[in-house]
Amino acid sequence: MKISIVGITGYSGLELVKILNNHKKTELVSIHATKEVGRRLSEVYPYLTGVCDLEIEAFNAQKIMEKADLVFFATPSGVASSLAEEFVQAGFPIIDLSGDHRLPASIYEKWYKKSPAKEMILNKFTYALSEYTDVKDKKFIANPGCYATATELALIPLVAAGLIEIDSVIVDAKSGLTGAGKALSESSHFVNVHDNYVTYKLNHHQHIPEIVQTLRAFDADMPEIQFSTSLLPVNRGIMATVYCKLKKDVAVSDVASAFAKAYDDKPFVRVQDNLPELHNVIGSNFTDIGFAYNEKTNVLTVISVIDNLIKGAAGQAVQNLNLMQGWDETEGLLMTPSYL
Amino acid sequence: MKISIVGITGYSGLELVKILNNHKKTELVSIHATKEVGRRLSEVYPYLTGVCDLEIEAFNAQKIMEKADLVFFATPSGVASSLAEEFVQAGFPIIDLSGDHRLPASIYEKWYKKSPAKEMILNKFTYALSEYTDVKDKKFIANPGCYATATELALIPLVAAGLIEIDSVIVDAKSGLTGAGKALSESSHFVNVHDNYVTYKLNHHQHIPEIVQTLRAFDADMPEIQFSTSLLPVNRGIMATVYCKLKKDVAVSDVASAFAKAYDDKPFVRVQDNLPELHNVIGSNFTDIGFAYNEKTNVLTVISVIDNLIKGAAGQAVQNLNLMQGWDETEGLLMTPSYL
Amino acid sequence: MKISIVGITGYSGLELVKILNNHKKTELVSIHATKEVGRRLSEVYPYLTGVCDLEIEAFNAQKIMEKADLVFFATPSGVASSLAEEFVQAGFPIIDLSGDHRLPASIYEKWYKKSPAKEMILNKFTYALSEYTDVKDKKFIANPGCYATATELALIPLVAAGLIEIDSVIVDAKSGLTGAGKALSESSHFVNVHDNYVTYKLNHHQHIPEIVQTLRAFDADMPEIQFSTSLLPVNRGIMATVYCKLKKDVAVSDVASAFAKAYDDKPFVRVQDNLPELHNVIGSNFTDIGFAYNEKTNVLTVISVIDNLIKGAAGQAVQNLNLMQGWDETEGLLMTPSYL
Amino acid sequence: MKISIVGITGYSGLELVKILNNHKKTELVSIHATKEVGRRLSEVYPYLTGVCDLEIEAFNAQKIMEKADLVFFATPSGVASSLAEEFVQAGFPIIDLSGDHRLPASIYEKWYKKSPAKEMILNKFTYALSEYTDVKDKKFIANPGCYATATELALIPLVAAGLIEIDSVIVDAKSGLTGAGKALSESSHFVNVHDNYVTYKLNHHQHIPEIVQTLRAFDADMPEIQFSTSLLPVNRGIMATVYCKLKKDVAVSDVASAFAKAYDDKPFVRVQDNLPELHNVIGSNFTDIGFAYNEKTNVLTVISVIDNLIKGAAGQAVQNLNLMQGWDETEGLLMTPSYL
Repeated sequence: MKISIVGITGYSGLELVKILNNHKKTELVSIHATKEVGRRLSEVYPYLTGVCDLEIEAFNAQKIMEKADLVFFATPSGVASSLAEEFVQAGFPIIDLSGDHRLPASIYEKWYKKSPAKEMILNKFTYALSEYTDVKDKKFIANPGCYATATELALIPLVAAGLIEIDSVIVDAKSGLTGAGKALSESSHFVNVHDNYVTYKLNHHQHIPEIVQTLRAFDADMPEIQFSTSLLPVNRGIMATVYCKLKKDVAVSDVASAFAKAYDDKPFVRVQDNLPELHNVIGSNFTDIGFAYNEKTNVLTVISVIDNLIKGAAGQAVQNLNLMQGWDETEGLLMTPSYL
Repeated sequence: MKISIVGITGYSGLELVKILNNHKKTELVSIHATKEVGRRLSEVYPYLTGVCDLEIEAFNAQKIMEKADLVFFATPSGVASSLAEEFVQAGFPIIDLSGDHRLPASIYEKWYKKSPAKEMILNKFTYALSEYTDVKDKKFIANPGCYATATELALIPLVAAGLIEIDSVIVDAKSGLTGAGKALSESSHFVNVHDNYVTYKLNHHQHIPEIVQTLRAFDADMPEIQFSTSLLPVNRGIMATVYCKLKKDVAVSDVASAFAKAYDDKPFVRVQDNLPELHNVIGSNFTDIGFAYNEKTNVLTVISVIDNLIKGAAGQAVQNLNLMQGWDETEGLLMTPSYL
Repeated sequence: MKISIVGITGYSGLELVKILNNHKKTELVSIHATKEVGRRLSEVYPYLTGVCDLEIEAFNAQKIMEKADLVFFATPSGVASSLAEEFVQAGFPIIDLSGDHRLPASIYEKWYKKSPAKEMILNKFTYALSEYTDVKDKKFIANPGCYATATELALIPLVAAGLIEIDSVIVDAKSGLTGAGKALSESSHFVNVHDNYVTYKLNHHQHIPEIVQTLRAFDADMPEIQFSTSLLPVNRGIMATVYCKLKKDVAVSDVASAFAKAYDDKPFVRVQDNLPELHNVIGSNFTDIGFAYNEKTNVLTVISVIDNLIKGAAGQAVQNLNLMQGWDETEGLLMTPSYL
Repeated sequence: MKISIVGITGYSGLELVKILNNHKKTELVSIHATKEVGRRLSEVYPYLTGVCDLEIEAFNAQKIMEKADLVFFATPSGVASSLAEEFVQAGFPIIDLSGDHRLPASIYEKWYKKSPAKEMILNKFTYALSEYTDVKDKKFIANPGCYATATELALIPLVAAGLIEIDSVIVDAKSGLTGAGKALSESSHFVNVHDNYVTYKLNHHQHIPEIVQTLRAFDADMPEIQFSTSLLPVNRGIMATVYCKLKKDVAVSDVASAFAKAYDDKPFVRVQDNLPELHNVIGSNFTDIGFAYNEKTNVLTVISVIDNLIKGAAGQAVQNLNLMQGWDETEGLLMTPSYL
């Protein structure tokens, strides 16, 4: 299958290159960006010497549709919505890693403060959390956000089984700096991040409506959730620490059963006996989940960790590709966590 | 005033040396440890060359009482309780930075899993959170724990003013590695900490009963709190992120008033308009507090940051000394945060 | 081919597991250590859940020889020498990642301060820097040290072509903490490493004689070299910064030619146009080399970077295995650098 | 003494605020910048709440000369030269932390690629390395660069005493990110710096001519030096690793004597028995120096460490102020290294 990537110079685009390089059923045929056009990718990023020597091209929908069979959008929010329409009209498959096709237009506009895609385009996209969405033969995929992936995988089994007080959910989520993107800013300057810990966009993070929308598919009464996001002084990794109260008469063994039932047959979610650390998953497509219950406060703490660029972006995008095509779900994705 | 320090080679002991070096009313006359006895401190720690060239001595209560006017205990938990008795009997002033004299014997034993001090000794100690405790002319001070300091300063104004649902408190606290002490362990090995984020002692941290006990002095009905502790890959700093629900009819302006009333005249607590970062306070004795309210979830988020070795240990100990003696509360403690 | 690993719980042993997991021609059949015997590897290291669930066994030479076709030693220095003899006597293939079989006995003893292997055993081992040593059909391989690999790959083309003043070589090498091993020590405690940079074993590092011995194979007159080693506050990566003076009438284009000739057909050495950074190679088996010449001082600076656990240990060991067996040199080793 | 600072929002300007805040003989009366004019400094930098609440003003030479007795320039290179002239004409004292008044015009232009100050202005400035320059009653001070300070303090005693082969000097210097300034750039983006080590401006760093010029005052035959600069993934600190060959018949004890003679009476240079680490000096005005000799290669390694923002910038500037005024050299500068 021939693949094009739009937005090659962003972190997710580069990670797609890396993953597709070891994927047996795909061939990367063109890469596109607004910067560095005309240079080889390995010239701009010498670490890719011998890995990907394709030339960066300007975006050109017609050429992509001629050369490739599917396009990944790894562009910042607000870009894919304007470029995708032509492909959708032509029925050409898209996996969009950005937030542009995940939410209804009015909600997108409110949280992203950008013009939304058209409703008729949005309606054709399927929001695809790989472990829960049947994407077989779908053509237009909205790949979930990084924080959303970690949080939804932790909460869905509990919400779906009706185990928790749904108005008690508090999520304290932390991310490494690649999650904040590649743009230069005071908040990504080394000196300001190193030896620091900064909470940002409190109550305003654009993944909040995505999470709530997903959970409502499992319990229509799900209210808003309390959701904090902070920057860890590391490059990769998200930990979502989820606090919630158990419903009366729910035992911690019910929690264990719900997670086992949800994930025992899922190759990329590992329910652990202990609370997972970031190191568990960095460099891999795994989500590790652990939990602990406090009898005195009736609070269940669930910890979910992912590599934000892999399971939280490029890895899940390829997982969705594998599922769309009916290939082995794990093709190209069996990287062992780097750990050390 | 002549000062001795017992436990000089721990992080808090070394930080005391640093602070007392710029304190105009004290003179450090002896330093004690079980290791490195007979060597000059600056020989063991060359960064202290010219700052403190005293020789490390074995512990000797009689000699300390002869040479000094007050002793700081900066020993690990379980040590001060066995050494302090002789000083207490003799009426010789102590400021204990360890956890040994903060809790009733039975609670101490349960959470620290160590033998407690005798009740008659414990009864003579005053737990002294500098901003709330009158220590004038007290002789035996139990200095608060680092997590406890950050959390109590964030919660007391709210609990005291009756603004929050007291059974809704969830604290997600994070600390740098100096908070985990100097002992070698897998969990403090560089490779295991760097690029990682690890939640530990969930529901079991020994500062939990200390916090609850302190809050109960402001509201006797205060129940247990949900309290998480995690290790940040930095050397210094604690952030306590406190989540709680506001009582009906409480406005966010009431919260602002409560904090202003509590801290406007306190030199070391700064209520900030924005959410504080670790960088705000590292290297100083300040506690910075900020908050944000979410109308949709009725959750108030309060963020409190301290330098765990200064306001969370040696700095507050010297602040307590200043207050005991009726000196200027800020003597020796006006270090500007290093920030960069 | 069936493989056993002795020393599974060290950093190199764990990295071997990771690499062999994606190697098509090998099967890992047993793993051995002195600690954690009887537990599954994934129980001790949850990040390996689903990757390697083998049980850790005590060392047993006979059982290894029955079950496996080749054994990797990933033990600390001083261990392999005592365990390897039985295998050598039996003609059973070994790749030793430790320093035990790289040097003549007297030199080993002087630099490692440990008892050396027997001369008759040492004589059977081949020191194998993959790019320079023909290991086809060899049975006993001494895998090079991490600093030595980075330094030798930078210097050999220059020494072999007679381009530099051989008594002018100064190497300022830096390593991440995994290079210092897994043992707990003051020098690997997070607080002592973070925000620090420490030069250690100056003039005494045990890789010095290994480098000199290797270079003498290309110029018998090669004298001792000046070699410094420092710890960078990162987990992985070595940079060897090599300074040397060019011989009279040598042009910088001769340097470029020498490197091109040495490495144009080598899949894992990439000569770059710019000075390489650690990020270039972390997570991969690549060595990236760049250089710059200063006309005013006649000093050539060569910078060589590797991932110390991969090209500097487990990766090169598998590369040597591939070469021994006549397999594709890159089998199992085409990991893209993680970069971000 | 009344002080103004121009360039308050840069790292050196902020560090000056911090130091002057604890200086007994000075009062900060105005602070100037091109950004954030009209806002209080503590509003822009909340960590300075209660430390410095002055309002940031636009630059105005006349107003500064009316209100203050001396001005510090903490501006980027190329700025001070255009602003200083008016003060020089009026005989108003300046301490310039930038590189604008350190070098002859032609050399400045070549290395900084910017327009130089006028020769007649340059001639009035004294380059002042505090330990070597008599600045008593001088009015116009060019404060040394950070790399230059660390390197010169390591080399001057050796060059002055004629102990080393002057054409053998190779300096491998490393700096934390605050040394690279506050401007946003790819090279200061957290993701690009963290877990990396990058050599930059090899053979082109603008501190090279400053170092050579200084050394030539001690040996007129001093040739160019080989000088490398790299970025360490830390915020603060420089280590200069100096390699040089000893002249024939020079003993290592001569080296020790030369350092002792140079620095025994200098309060801010500490010659250590062991090789110093960055931790030795961070947060302080100290320079720590250690050395080791290799008999086999006849190479002397000297390691010199400083805090680049203190001894390498604001601290040395205040030290020069103290010396100009005939005050105690250590006034305001006795900060203990933070170490942890």
